[in-house]
Amino acid sequence: MRATVLTIGDELLIGQIVDTNAAWIGERLTVMGIRPIRLETVGDEQVQMREALARAMRDGRVTVVTGGLGPTHDDLTREVVASLFNAPLREDPALVEGMRRRFERRGMQMPASNRVQALVPDGFEAIPNPVGTAPALVGSYPHPQGDGLIVLLPGVPYEMQAFMQDHMLGRIAAMDGAPEVLQRTLLTVGISESALADLLDGAKAYLHPETSLAFLPNLRGVRLRLTAVGPDAASRLEDLATFIHARAEKWIYGEGQDTLEAAVGRLLKERNLTVATAESCTGGFVAHRLTDVPGSSEWVIGGVVAYANSVKQQQLGVRSETLGTFGAVSRQTACEMADGVRRLLGSDVGISTTGIMGPGGGSEGKPVGTFWMGISSSKRTVAVDMALGMDRIRNKERASTAVLDLLRRELQHFG
Amino acid sequence: MRATVLTIGDELLIGQIVDTNAAWIGERLTVMGIRPIRLETVGDEQVQMREALARAMRDGRVTVVTGGLGPTHDDLTREVVASLFNAPLREDPALVEGMRRRFERRGMQMPASNRVQALVPDGFEAIPNPVGTAPALVGSYPHPQGDGLIVLLPGVPYEMQAFMQDHMLGRIAAMDGAPEVLQRTLLTVGISESALADLLDGAKAYLHPETSLAFLPNLRGVRLRLTAVGPDAASRLEDLATFIHARAEKWIYGEGQDTLEAAVGRLLKERNLTVATAESCTGGFVAHRLTDVPGSSEWVIGGVVAYANSVKQQQLGVRSETLGTFGAVSRQTACEMADGVRRLLGSDVGISTTGIMGPGGGSEGKPVGTFWMGISSSKRTVAVDMALGMDRIRNKERASTAVLDLLRRELQHFG
Repeated sequence: MRATVLTIGDELLIGQIVDTNAAWIGERLTVMGIRPIRLETVGDEQVQMREALARAMRDGRVTVVTGGLGPTHDDLTREVVASLFNAPLREDPALVEGMRRRFERRGMQMPASNRVQALVPDGFEAIPNPVGTAPALVGSYPHPQGDGLIVLLPGVPYEMQAFMQDHMLGRIAAMDGAPEVLQRTLLTVGISESALADLLDGAKAYLHPETSLAFLPNLRGVRLRLTAVGPDAASRLEDLATFIHARAEKWIYGEGQDTLEAAVGRLLKERNLTVATAESCTGGFVAHRLTDVPGSSEWVIGGVVAYANSVKQQQLGVRSETLGTFGAVSRQTACEMADGVRRLLGSDVGISTTGIMGPGGGSEGKPVGTFWMGISSSKRTVAVDMALGMDRIRNKERASTAVLDLLRRELQHFG
Repeated sequence: MRATVLTIGDELLIGQIVDTNAAWIGERLTVMGIRPIRLETVGDEQVQMREALARAMRDGRVTVVTGGLGPTHDDLTREVVASLFNAPLREDPALVEGMRRRFERRGMQMPASNRVQALVPDGFEAIPNPVGTAPALVGSYPHPQGDGLIVLLPGVPYEMQAFMQDHMLGRIAAMDGAPEVLQRTLLTVGISESALADLLDGAKAYLHPETSLAFLPNLRGVRLRLTAVGPDAASRLEDLATFIHARAEKWIYGEGQDTLEAAVGRLLKERNLTVATAESCTGGFVAHRLTDVPGSSEWVIGGVVAYANSVKQQQLGVRSETLGTFGAVSRQTACEMADGVRRLLGSDVGISTTGIMGPGGGSEGKPVGTFWMGISSSKRTVAVDMALGMDRIRNKERASTAVLDLLRRELQHFG
């Protein structure tokens, strides 16, 4: 079953905003076993819109359109659809009433211009917007493979996503001939794509055209996407996941939309432990990621950004002999920083980072990319090094992930 | 002059990666006065590629294609172009030699599969890739408005961008009938889009169809894009920029691709001052942004992430009476944090953040979104409040920008 996605808006064409809707929709459809074959973006211009819409419906049995449903004269999706379907626009009184109440609750009168958002092409169903004014519209069209489904959604990503999740994905899954697909994403960290592929070589025994495994690497780890289609999908998916867990348990920190910082937070909370950070090269990024997790104040005490050596010495208690003999970027300094912040802030665990992120600051013995991270707890203090690359921003990303993973692994040793 | 952009790759269709190339190219073309009318994405599939390519060239006098130039059997752009242009593929010996040397420098033999990347459709020009193996290809085609230009680029964003900037934008600008367009982007912070629009109402006197001003807001501020086309573009642009500077100087921190953190860094460096951060609610994000700037170790001493009140008291010296009487999220605490970190780390300036970022932690008197930021220097210590929203991640973004802007403005008072 093929799908097409059409996103509408001049702001996308001129690069004022990056279109994340198309990728989000493409991913969700793919997960359901429906194949997106084309993504198109056109501006707020009737001829282009009409042509693109006709092409999208010709090639896809599912057509997802976002944008152009606002109240201004630039918002032409309703009119183009009405004209293409030869379906007159009628005002839906329930939609008008819903919008009027929405404005009332905020102590405002509904602007006359919003009324156009209550117009629905004949034969389409309107679904009110729980968080905005533009309703979603759903219709059907003839297609060689059976009835086609077209959904028109607002372009604001969180409104679009809410409509897709709460209403549209279910309708698409219920279409005649829609495949039954199950999918899970296992999240790994601390192992490269190729090492993971070698480790999971035996997974081949579980794979065939209807059971597949994809490796999706990025700077924060490698995601493993398991997909099974057709009869017995659930048990085939389960068997594959069991095999992967048995081989790669050590590197798996979560599933789906989980994050490493949230996983670390759960481990700390379960063990009733707190953490503090001593950051040189990551400059606060590790603390920032930890405190992105809602409720993190329960297990983050705080941290020290020890950019200058004076802060390493005076706050964290790194000895001047250590800095003199081994340098600020060294195993010894990383250990003393982790010990120091644990002692200073009174946390159960201390973690540290020190490295040369670039573009400057490298030397022959310690080139750009040299990185040490440390961890200190009641059990032990250790430091580990890692070779990063040349790009400062990517290096901060990789270094922060590495030290959060070091913390994750160390927490396994606590009861 | 109209342009079309075609991005190729299954990974884009299935949402494995978000296509940032199309927006980047769309923006660059728009800046040059060339109008992108459609962005399309298709997978690694010949029929779809061929159809989309023909359509792109039909509608655009400039056609930019990215992706599908790699060495594997999935990379079909060369073949589809050769077939559509009826232009046989020939091996370019200089390209082969360049690739061979590239592998040699890394101590490797060139894999046989890479050789396909040296194939060039007859009539196309190949431009070697300085940072990868896939060359860019440039060709021309007949178009009703004059010769059309087609450029084929690798899909890796930084390779694509390098080719566009170093080679393609110049060729596009040199096409017959390409408009002469000048553009500048002024970056503002600390003022809302609507307040800025009111303030700059007088700019209307400078605007007409060939001189325009766009307001582009995001969480880090409002960018002002000034565009002038045609004869006298330079002097019209200059007049408009002079007017805007005269009215809004206070809020303008830079131009083009500058960042607020880099601007703050320049101000500190010019004044020979250093900064330290005391972060509660931003959790290290302010220090992270400052240390993203290359060379920031010259003016960032470090910081304290004072998430727990114990850290505010013991490290930063916030008094328990202050916390008891006014609370951790208060003017008084923000001031004492800023003073405290300046004293503790010996910096010239201290900045602080404390607030309730959500989703939990709000109360009747201090709802989610309550935020105080402080600054301490030899001149004075002050704190300012601001009402943020309900979303934790957006709140951290806005709060960090606000305190960096507070620092920027305070630095104006130093000689």
